[in-house]
Parts: sequence; structure tokens; C-alpha cells
Amino acid sequence: MVYELYYWPGIQGRGEYVRLALEYAGAKYVDTALLPEMKGGGVKALEKFLNGRSVRHPPFAPPFLKAGRLLIGQTPNILLFLGGRLNLAPRDEAGRLWTHQLQLTIADLIVESHDVHHPIGSGLYYEQQKAAAKRRANDFLARRVPKFLDYFERVVARNPAGGPGMVGRRLTYADLSLAQVLAGLQFAFPRAMSPSMRAHPRLRALQEYVFSRPRIVRYQTSNRRLGFNNHDLFRHYPELDG
Amino acid sequence: MVYELYYWPGIQGRGEYVRLALEYAGAKYVDTALLPEMKGGGVKALEKFLNGRSVRHPPFAPPFLKAGRLLIGQTPNILLFLGGRLNLAPRDEAGRLWTHQLQLTIADLIVESHDVHHPIGSGLYYEQQKAAAKRRANDFLARRVPKFLDYFERVVARNPAGGPGMVGRRLTYADLSLAQVLAGLQFAFPRAMSPSMRAHPRLRALQEYVFSRPRIVRYQTSNRRLGFNNHDLFRHYPELDG
Repeated sequence: MVYELYYWPGIQGRGEYVRLALEYAGAKYVDTALLPEMKGGGVKALEKFLNGRSVRHPPFAPPFLKAGRLLIGQTPNILLFLGGRLNLAPRDEAGRLWTHQLQLTIADLIVESHDVHHPIGSGLYYEQQKAAAKRRANDFLARRVPKFLDYFERVVARNPAGGPGMVGRRLTYADLSLAQVLAGLQFAFPRAMSPSMRAHPRLRALQEYVFSRPRIVRYQTSNRRLGFNNHDLFRHYPELDG
Repeated sequence: MVYELYYWPGIQGRGEYVRLALEYAGAKYVDTALLPEMKGGGVKALEKFLNGRSVRHPPFAPPFLKAGRLLIGQTPNILLFLGGRLNLAPRDEAGRLWTHQLQLTIADLIVESHDVHHPIGSGLYYEQQKAAAKRRANDFLARRVPKFLDYFERVVARNPAGGPGMVGRRLTYADLSLAQVLAGLQFAFPRAMSPSMRAHPRLRALQEYVFSRPRIVRYQTSNRRLGFNNHDLFRHYPELDG
């Protein structure tokens, strides 16, 4: 099976959570964001599915994954599917639901991380909502980030296998996603996140573990991995950094 | 099996999506939000799971559902589980994933509906962020609501069974949730939603169909169903209504 990933070109965005799962598992996939439009990639490849009149299960937004005849949208849903296919989550119902529950909590943190720089609307420029963004950043860094980090630290601590991940002995797609969010937050808020990461040793260890897995290292040093940038979910605006 | 639902007392909130699924399926459940603390209900019942040191799979926030030994958090995850148990989603993989994908898109709309009145932070009062809320409401009603409603209208139109729901012939948990969101948006934004609903006849039909199912009618007229109110996800502030 060669998976096809559809996402906006030029950013990691939500596509990155899917890429990390595919890369960690060593799955074969085509990342259409990296293909020119002439070769069936780019934005045109997305539009066919977003606007095509004959698409039976139209996605609301990228990313979406084509797996044979299946077309699957919504990042946590794609990961739920890949978790089973690529052995990135426990097989039993309790473990499967728990991993998905963690992913959905990570998804909440991702939305909040984005909305820090776009609290009024994603259709407006950052400069049009900078004052509101400053207020939201204060609230996010003072109340929300600690709540999320304390939570995930506790989850790793309660993993009966003792870590480094949140669920059992093997890494799951939720661990890969959490490591990516932590990296994104450190890119966006280096000043505020430095003491936060020191205070959460299990999360620091999880992030280091994920980004030192051989396939993830190969991916990170390949031309397939884009860098963080200020058109993306996580943005570094020094005035928002605590 | 008697399910136990844990949620904040006094509001419909995210608990309501779970309640509608349980009620529509005629499942037996205890709604701890309706029980006094002396009888194991109320906020104390939540705290045991949110803060208890021996909870193996701690939820980040309510709602969560206890089903025998399983403790399941995150609304879409609870519904994924109940969809299988209560026959509120197709059994085949494609149909199950599609229903969940729709639920996750509904969840996105729910977050945005909430953030209209709390664009700066959920820990601050509405009055502290009223100016930002007005700007966000403009963006939400002008760009986001039409995008979501057009999308779901299209999804119903493409249902090969011809509706009234989004997936096949039978109602799914996603249909129940969508009807609830539409009702919530009409409560919050009666002026803006009136032409929007006229322009989306399939969604109007879906909402009417859901709220005329006998078990849902019985639920709505029971003392178990709380009304919409301004402490909840959907809030009616006339100054935000277009």
C-alpha cells in the first residue's frame, strides 16, 4: 500500500502529525505537497478533493489521506486509522481508545497554540489582531500551557511501562504528535518554554526519545521535512513570548 | 450495562452530545451532573477522576464516560465508542471513519462557537473580552458559519440514501450532534442564523428530524434536558448577533 497524503505546500501544519507517523513506521507514501502541480501535486491536488462534485466523502479541510479506495480526513481520524494499520497504537479496545483520547487532547492544544496568534479570525492578518494576540498569549502561557504540560507529564508518569511514551512500552502516534507539539511550542515561545520544559522532565525525555529514533532522524535531515516558519501553526513573534 | 456520564452540572455543554446519543439509543445511564454530591454526583464526582492519584487513564476535562472498567474521555472518542456499542454508526471501517470524521468537524465548529464569546481566554469573563468578541463574532458569522453549513449541507446532499442524515439510512451520533449544534447556534445568534437556516434546507430537515424522534422528544420534555443558557458553550449576547 502506498499512502497519499494531501496537505498545503510550504508548511508542516497538521500534515506533520501524519508525516511523523508514516515516517516512524517506515510506510511508503507520496506527499503531494512536495510534488509540483504538473505532476499531480500542490494546491491543485487538494482542490480536486475539496471542491470535486463527485467526491463521496469530501473532507472539510486538509490534511487528508488516500489509502486505496478510502479517503480519510481530520488529523486524529487519520492517525486512528494509521495506528491500526502501522502498529502505532495498542490493538485492544481500551488501549486504542486511550491513545485516541490523548491525541484529541493534543489536538485541543494545537488549536489553542494556533489561536494565540489568530484570536479574532484565521482570515485576518496577524497584524490586524496583534493586541488581542498579546492578551491571548498571556493567558495561554500562564494558564493553558502549564495545564496541558502538567497533564501529559502525569500521563507519562502513570504509564505502567514507565515511559518514555504515554501508552505502554512502544511509541504510539500520540507520542510522536506530542513531541512535535512540544518542539513547536519551543519554536514559538523559546523564552517561556525553557523553564516549562525544565519543570517537566518526562516530557523532555519523550521529546528527545522521539527525535532520536533512527527513522525520525533520517526524516528530519531529509529534504522532506520542512522547518518551522511564521506561516505555520506555531509562530515565533517575540512580543507574544511571555 | 449502565453507563455513567460525568459532566459539569448546570449546563448542556459537551456532555449534551453524549446524552443525545444515549437517549436516542435508549441506553441506561446515570448522569452524575443531575445527582447531588451526597449521592455521588455533582462536581465532587468529577474531581475524583480528574485529580485522583490512582486513575490510570486520567481525563483532561469532562465529559467522560464510565463503561464497566473503561473510563473514556474526549467527546468524539466517547461517541466513537458508543457508536459501535449502541449501533449509532456503520459497522464497516469506511463508514465508521467517515462518521468520526464528521464528528471531528462538528467538534471544530463547537470550539469556534465557544471562542466567539471567549476569544482571549476561557479563564476571563466575557465582559473582559467583549470588544474582541464582537470582532470575532463578525468573522465567525461572515466566514466560518457559512463555510461549515455549506459543507454539511453538501454532505447530506451526497448521502447516497438521500438523507435525512449524513451517513446512510440510519441516524448516526454525528447527525444527533449536528442537530444540537444547529440548535445551539440558533439560540446564540437568532438574527444571523435565520437566513442561514433558510438557505440550507437539508440541515433544517435534519434538525427537525432529529428533534422529532420519539425518544428525543421524551428526553427534551423530561427534567433531564437542561435549557440553553449563558453559562454554556452557546451564549446569546445580542451585541454579537450580526
